[in-house]
Amino acid sequence: MIQLYYTPDTCSLASHIALEEAGALYSTVRISFAANEQRSPEYLAINPKGRVPALVTERGVLTETPAILAFIAQAYPQAHLPPLDDSFAFAQVQAFNSYLSSTLHVAHAHRMRGYRWADDPAAIAEMQRKAPQAVSACYEPVERSMQKGPWVMGEAYTICDAYLFTMAQWLEADGVDVARLPKVVDHRRRMGERAAVKRAIAQEMG
Amino acid sequence: MIQLYYTPDTCSLASHIALEEAGALYSTVRISFAANEQRSPEYLAINPKGRVPALVTERGVLTETPAILAFIAQAYPQAHLPPLDDSFAFAQVQAFNSYLSSTLHVAHAHRMRGYRWADDPAAIAEMQRKAPQAVSACYEPVERSMQKGPWVMGEAYTICDAYLFTMAQWLEADGVDVARLPKVVDHRRRMGERAAVKRAIAQEMG
Repeated sequence: MIQLYYTPDTCSLASHIALEEAGALYSTVRISFAANEQRSPEYLAINPKGRVPALVTERGVLTETPAILAFIAQAYPQAHLPPLDDSFAFAQVQAFNSYLSSTLHVAHAHRMRGYRWADDPAAIAEMQRKAPQAVSACYEPVERSMQKGPWVMGEAYTICDAYLFTMAQWLEADGVDVARLPKVVDHRRRMGERAAVKRAIAQEMG
Repeated sequence: MIQLYYTPDTCSLASHIALEEAGALYSTVRISFAANEQRSPEYLAINPKGRVPALVTERGVLTETPAILAFIAQAYPQAHLPPLDDSFAFAQVQAFNSYLSSTLHVAHAHRMRGYRWADDPAAIAEMQRKAPQAVSACYEPVERSMQKGPWVMGEAYTICDAYLFTMAQWLEADGVDVARLPKVVDHRRRMGERAAVKRAIAQEMG
């Protein structure tokens, strides 16, 4: 059975939701950032990068949210998560998720993890100060054009929805003015009503 | 015919190389960062995010390097770029490229584009100071375990190789001690000998 290594309140929620949406048989292992378990020898043997999520499959370990989401979609084709038979549509899904991963999530990370890119406490504080503005700027194209509606890719629910919902958990904590993002906030609300999303969150909170 | 919008000395080289490796029929459009063309209304109509690369296809525009690379691999299956018929192997390719995009390239960006995450010139200077260390740390798992050899994914050349080669163009400018990365540097040398790589670089320099 596949295993998801996750930490509550991190981007691993996206993979967790996708596993639930796919109807996968899986188990979960919680990694405590408070106890620094992501840097433990046991976990580094699974993911040498010391981050979550990691998906342990019978073929080996997968990391990086966009890759795990694409794998879940392909491994459970009966769930019809992204358009698997259309290389352009699939690339659009990958482009959206890649943007969340390499631009939007990165802007968010400057609020809490500025030490990755600076040592001086004043510089780290400055990144924290600018984070609301930087994160807001990253959401602008999502609100304006990238989210087609009702779901990210249009009529079909895809792995993009699980990922955007996960990022949008942090809007208020990041100091983003949510009144300027009505579509993103409405998407978050509708996502929260899905049974698979409720199950994944309940499991992480339990 | 598809069109690649690129800027010399940026990550768009990876997509350019992949198009050459695939034997694609394509044309290129150079976007000058010096002239700020990436923020021109004409280019923003193509890519509202104002970055390169962008690939204009008959179906629409694709952005984000990992997505463009996966699309090229799928659209030109005769080039056998990644393992398309194996969802786990394909996810490994996506995981590697996602790491380059969201972690390694991001560390590099702090040397030149710190203004994305801070306004204070002292903070921007501090990010620049730490960039060699941050970029080096990102290359450690690539050198140690992520690059299987002789190519990134092992015996088969994939889109990962074009992307790693592109990132590795900046090692010296980023102040990385290349003596600590013999596998990465050897990979870069062998990549530079490939005809497709030479053609892509010659076109960008021409």
